[in-house]
Amino acid sequence: MKKFVILFTACLLSLTCSSQQQKQSSVIKTPVPERPAGQTDVLDLRTAPLPTVRVAFIGLGMRGPGAVQRMTYIPGVEIVALCDVEQKNTEKVNEMLEKRGFPKAQEFYGDTAIWRKVTALPNVDLIYIATDWKHHAVMGVQAMKDGKHVAIEVPSAMNMDEIWDLINTSEQTRKHCMQLENCVYDFFELTTLNMVQQGLLGDVIHGEGAYIHGLQPYWEEYWNDWRMDFNKEHRGDVYPTHGLGPVCQAMNIHRGDKLNYLVSMDTKAIGNPAFLKEKRGEEVKDFRNGDHTCTMISTENGKSILIEHNVTSPRPYNRMYQLTGTKGFANKYPSEGYALGSEALDPSLTANHENLTAHSFVSDEIRKALMEKYKHPIAKDIEDLAKKVGGHGGMDFIMDYRLIYCLQRGLPLDMDVYDLAEWCSLIPLTELSLDNSSAPVEIPDFTRGAWNKLNGLKFAQ
Amino acid sequence: MKKFVILFTACLLSLTCSSQQQKQSSVIKTPVPERPAGQTDVLDLRTAPLPTVRVAFIGLGMRGPGAVQRMTYIPGVEIVALCDVEQKNTEKVNEMLEKRGFPKAQEFYGDTAIWRKVTALPNVDLIYIATDWKHHAVMGVQAMKDGKHVAIEVPSAMNMDEIWDLINTSEQTRKHCMQLENCVYDFFELTTLNMVQQGLLGDVIHGEGAYIHGLQPYWEEYWNDWRMDFNKEHRGDVYPTHGLGPVCQAMNIHRGDKLNYLVSMDTKAIGNPAFLKEKRGEEVKDFRNGDHTCTMISTENGKSILIEHNVTSPRPYNRMYQLTGTKGFANKYPSEGYALGSEALDPSLTANHENLTAHSFVSDEIRKALMEKYKHPIAKDIEDLAKKVGGHGGMDFIMDYRLIYCLQRGLPLDMDVYDLAEWCSLIPLTELSLDNSSAPVEIPDFTRGAWNKLNGLKFAQ
Repeated sequence: MKKFVILFTACLLSLTCSSQQQKQSSVIKTPVPERPAGQTDVLDLRTAPLPTVRVAFIGLGMRGPGAVQRMTYIPGVEIVALCDVEQKNTEKVNEMLEKRGFPKAQEFYGDTAIWRKVTALPNVDLIYIATDWKHHAVMGVQAMKDGKHVAIEVPSAMNMDEIWDLINTSEQTRKHCMQLENCVYDFFELTTLNMVQQGLLGDVIHGEGAYIHGLQPYWEEYWNDWRMDFNKEHRGDVYPTHGLGPVCQAMNIHRGDKLNYLVSMDTKAIGNPAFLKEKRGEEVKDFRNGDHTCTMISTENGKSILIEHNVTSPRPYNRMYQLTGTKGFANKYPSEGYALGSEALDPSLTANHENLTAHSFVSDEIRKALMEKYKHPIAKDIEDLAKKVGGHGGMDFIMDYRLIYCLQRGLPLDMDVYDLAEWCSLIPLTELSLDNSSAPVEIPDFTRGAWNKLNGLKFAQ
Repeated sequence: MKKFVILFTACLLSLTCSSQQQKQSSVIKTPVPERPAGQTDVLDLRTAPLPTVRVAFIGLGMRGPGAVQRMTYIPGVEIVALCDVEQKNTEKVNEMLEKRGFPKAQEFYGDTAIWRKVTALPNVDLIYIATDWKHHAVMGVQAMKDGKHVAIEVPSAMNMDEIWDLINTSEQTRKHCMQLENCVYDFFELTTLNMVQQGLLGDVIHGEGAYIHGLQPYWEEYWNDWRMDFNKEHRGDVYPTHGLGPVCQAMNIHRGDKLNYLVSMDTKAIGNPAFLKEKRGEEVKDFRNGDHTCTMISTENGKSILIEHNVTSPRPYNRMYQLTGTKGFANKYPSEGYALGSEALDPSLTANHENLTAHSFVSDEIRKALMEKYKHPIAKDIEDLAKKVGGHGGMDFIMDYRLIYCLQRGLPLDMDVYDLAEWCSLIPLTELSLDNSSAPVEIPDFTRGAWNKLNGLKFAQ
């Protein structure tokens, strides 16, 4: 923290009255490590095809067991190892494997260092990490160093050091490092992405996303209270990827555009400390994270993104997911809807300034027809199976399916380590903005100069 | 503009490494004029009762005629004068008065200075201004100097000089200066305000508001193109009051809390320049206002407000109006809904982290019952008449009714000149933030020290 403040102050002191210079200098910057000589980016990374993908799972408390189960529905997957601190968790998942007619996997459990044996296994291609947030990045880095591809639950990194470590390790080892961001695979998001890529919404100039989900029923489920701890100790949008991921994909971030800077604002902390007081009799005077956090991001191509975080207020679940384009509009919460430009306007529209329904959502009928017409190619074939296997309504299955599909064929994954970096960077960078009265904070170009090399997002086929 | 930049630079140069000082100093400040000796605030201003309120209207192009008509439904109102640049506009309204069985009012028209004769009239108590934005404040100031109360359409002031002029003139003359912010009187907003004041939502920690309304059908209706001109010349949330007003009321701004600072972010300008090109063949290279603008505001009591502005994208009309409280949640667009804390939760709620509908909106039935139970007292008596008279579904009538009701009884108006100042201040202050890479900008305490004097918002009865 201290080094940022000093950097910032140094910038400010070098200010002159020139408005352009001020514009540049008033943005807080964090250090960008120089790329070592000989190391290159991993954009569009292709690796040796793996007709059978041998997977080891670390973390089987909450999200892990579902992931293992979903993998049993994907041909060409071998579940080699199961790892958790607690034996009961590995056992339970092995029982599920047996029931599903699969051979038992090797179990690793007993202490918090046991995972190092798993990343070191010789007979594994992919490490799938679903532990607490605090261990995501260190495990991911080690897995790649041990020669494995790695898929890490969200958020995969919690600070800038972890983010740069993952990037550098992926670039050095030429191993995939994918964040398991499932929400980009939800049906409405996939369909809308396809509409965007077909030009139906025009130029998408503004996007919104959120994680608004009262976690009261779940707080006691997190091992060692890691999630509440993180919120106690950190101010900021500590869970930004569900909201940010789908919007960044629609905006081709680091594939023709890039995130430039953010500003963040939060409320005081009431809900979580009140929960701790009521449920545990615990008095926390200096609870860091506010109840509600809003963050705005500006992009190189003059677009804006709004991201919100709230895990305590009595509100309906909401990821917002909203895209404003020059020709159309998509909105997911509280109800899915599209609005389209003049060609789709109600013909009864008149120039009466009292008429507040001039621009409206298309009818249910048209929306359904649109969603059928623009169903994303990657969802088409596996939609029925995805809905059957489940996992947040199917999106988790599509995510796992795509991960394996691309690894088997040696294709670039749908999400690369720069996506991971961009989406996770909100965690440390919003904290920095909040601790400086919402001052603008630069989002580094994590590709280190290559953000304009790819021409748009493509899911490999 | 220049003076702000210099002030800001001076602040920055005085920075030290102390984080607290930095926190204070990194916020851009605008000058706050000292209150002249002997002048006092106009909080809770009571004036001599006016059993008959004699009204003169200036500006009869778009919003004016409807206002005159609504006033004919309020007992104890005398419509004395009608003023517009164009004779056809004053004539048309006088015809309406005749049809409604009222005596004709004196007409003033012919040039852009004619309004000065109207504010100077001896037989008028209230000047009702519905001209273009650019003339709102200068007319308002003159009206008060000429001894009249004044009600001014939104936004009533477009820059900090105009805002401080209105405040100082109201404080000097002891005349009411109310902004005609109708949206605070919409039924859902009034009902929700009453719920908040009854404690149903707990502590309202975050609020959202917006003006999202594609103005393509209306651009040609604004006299002399004043609205497009303002957007051409000014970057920022140039129309913030509909979104901000109802949220500020729910948060008791300058009645126990105050707006501290804002940060703003916009997109590039595409929609409006494209409209000008297509409809008028006009090429505007340096169109100032972006298509979409987001602004976040932080309050003294640790709350946050998000305000959006977009008058060009193909989107359904949306003022957002959303309140997040510690006990409940209200949301108006795209559909009206409430969510309430644990006592109202679905009893089938289980601790299953796959269940995304844990917190839900109350059912339609409960929502209707709530809205009936918490109907705001000021809406109860006149609801039927308001809906009959109309004006954006009735809210315009309630606004006018309340204005006259309070003037007749010598009661404080529902909205004072500090509300006007706070809500309009976003126009210049968002521009300042945007021109400085979204840097935080202080929102002055327009009461100059008295923001904590009143204990909550009350509508006088």
